[in-house]
Amino acid sequence: MNTKEDCKENCKGWAARDPSGVLSPYQFNRRVPGLDDISLKITHCGVCYADVVWTRNKHGDSKYPLVPGHEIVGIVKEVGINVVSFKAGDHVGVGTYVSSCQQCEYCNERMEVNCEKGSVFTFNGIDVDGTVTKGGYSSHIVVHQRYCFKIPDNLPLASAAPLLCAGITVYSPMIRHHMNHAGKSLGVIGLGGLGHMAVKFGKAFGLNVTIFSTSASKKDEALNILGADKFIVSSDKDQIEASSKTLDFIIDTASGDHPIDLYMPLLKTAGVFVIVGFPSEIKIHPANLIIGMKSIAGSVTGGTKDTQEMLDFCAKERVYPDIEVIPIQYVNEALERMINKDVKYRFVIDIENSLV
Amino acid sequence: MNTKEDCKENCKGWAARDPSGVLSPYQFNRRVPGLDDISLKITHCGVCYADVVWTRNKHGDSKYPLVPGHEIVGIVKEVGINVVSFKAGDHVGVGTYVSSCQQCEYCNERMEVNCEKGSVFTFNGIDVDGTVTKGGYSSHIVVHQRYCFKIPDNLPLASAAPLLCAGITVYSPMIRHHMNHAGKSLGVIGLGGLGHMAVKFGKAFGLNVTIFSTSASKKDEALNILGADKFIVSSDKDQIEASSKTLDFIIDTASGDHPIDLYMPLLKTAGVFVIVGFPSEIKIHPANLIIGMKSIAGSVTGGTKDTQEMLDFCAKERVYPDIEVIPIQYVNEALERMINKDVKYRFVIDIENSLV
Repeated sequence: MNTKEDCKENCKGWAARDPSGVLSPYQFNRRVPGLDDISLKITHCGVCYADVVWTRNKHGDSKYPLVPGHEIVGIVKEVGINVVSFKAGDHVGVGTYVSSCQQCEYCNERMEVNCEKGSVFTFNGIDVDGTVTKGGYSSHIVVHQRYCFKIPDNLPLASAAPLLCAGITVYSPMIRHHMNHAGKSLGVIGLGGLGHMAVKFGKAFGLNVTIFSTSASKKDEALNILGADKFIVSSDKDQIEASSKTLDFIIDTASGDHPIDLYMPLLKTAGVFVIVGFPSEIKIHPANLIIGMKSIAGSVTGGTKDTQEMLDFCAKERVYPDIEVIPIQYVNEALERMINKDVKYRFVIDIENSLV
Repeated sequence: MNTKEDCKENCKGWAARDPSGVLSPYQFNRRVPGLDDISLKITHCGVCYADVVWTRNKHGDSKYPLVPGHEIVGIVKEVGINVVSFKAGDHVGVGTYVSSCQQCEYCNERMEVNCEKGSVFTFNGIDVDGTVTKGGYSSHIVVHQRYCFKIPDNLPLASAAPLLCAGITVYSPMIRHHMNHAGKSLGVIGLGGLGHMAVKFGKAFGLNVTIFSTSASKKDEALNILGADKFIVSSDKDQIEASSKTLDFIIDTASGDHPIDLYMPLLKTAGVFVIVGFPSEIKIHPANLIIGMKSIAGSVTGGTKDTQEMLDFCAKERVYPDIEVIPIQYVNEALERMINKDVKYRFVIDIENSLV
């Protein structure tokens, strides 16, 4: 009886079928929850730039049909017998990976993103059973309990979704590089999904926050809505020069190519420049590192430990991303708008009410 | 009487007169020691690549006649009335700077190299009295006690000289980036004055040390004399690949342009790549920073606190640079040989016995 059940396409989703990246309805099968698995009804999924990258085969490794989405939140439907920390009805989240070796030094430290054997991405990855992982643009997902996070009750599910990638991508290096010390000064380059979260975390940590943006049109919102302390248009050489040696940290969320040497002199001695975007190349004059013993560090998402800590922090401090909630039927237009930076600041798909 | 004395050219030295950089004998006047000053008879001075840079006006800011040398050791002749920690006969050293504001945050931390008003370089700098500083290719120097270091008795003066620039340039970032934890693994790029000191410090700290060099001819000496654990010719792609993710730290002492992306995959997760050389540009693929949350940090010399700590450490652990002692008359040839990397590993001028 179960065999027949398993063969049914038990999950609704939207998939890209080819490098055009156009998404359309697609039914597929999720596995029956194993002993350590959680099955969750997806209520919301954030729209991340990674969804564009892989639906359009930008890295040449896309496996179609491809169901994107790795900012997943929802409600537990069913848990395996070994699962004791989650129960039906719990609000939970799933981020950018759904498996790892669970044995290496980094897994042991709950920094599974650095797993020596490689973490398994939530979509377009190869799961433990050999199937291609399918992401959160879908009605439900089955995931090992280790890669599932508790969403505290006072954190709205829709708001929690973007934290699972955009949020942790900035939170993790901010903590690692000690940016959570009140009174320090932070520069944020780029004001998109990641950048606006860096501003919010910065303010929650008690930092003095300067936003660098290519567009002067964002100034009013940056200062008055996001609460940044200062807004500088990157092309304004005078303002850039006037800010020389004023910042303890810079977090660079811009993915397009841009001159890092422009910003390095703004760092104080021993300042840290963190890159979380993905330009095509990083070029820097050595004097900008050597004089004043500065450093440039990279980072990508985070581990399960700091992800859970971030969710708890966001719930406690009411740090919510600014989102635009959309139905799944709008997702192709949303991806275009995201490419054109026409979103404040993250699209979140209302899976529960639109994927029917 | 003193006035007449002061007008006499009281210091013998060797100076470059123009951008040819050729050095020849030159007599000049050092100031009478002030209340906080120490006057020391110079016994030895190390030959640093900076001596080439400024005698040949490579930065366009050389002030001739130019007396180079900032790896200075000698014996105290006379001290000002405020000086209590030094007395005539003491063995002392002077490094790359001889003054700073003594008031800023960095001076207060004894990291004067990062002084907000800029530290005054030991040669070609503008001293507190408005004169151009003159370096250690000379018979004596007068310097504020703050910028004078004690050379422990069991540290031979000639061996101590290169520590004041080459030594501290690698020691300071090695300590700052926690490379002094036994059992960790260190890669050293370049085997010159700085590189060979990084190897020696690495072994003294209990690290597993790999040397990367462009020249296979250095292998035997690297392993058997310097005591490195592993030697890799940078052009050997197979060996480089076989060392993937094996190093906790890399210290890059090479000044010529070289591909940093070649070495980044050798770092473990969270690995640190420290640049102390001066290539013309640093280029790096962002994946080499972002994947595995790695960082690149720059550094230049050190503060008075860590410089004294290094000298004490070297005396205690008998960490001595490998030097070739030369008379001042040989210095022009020595500079050429240094440019051609034909020195193991630092020239030290025997000022005491040759500058007469």
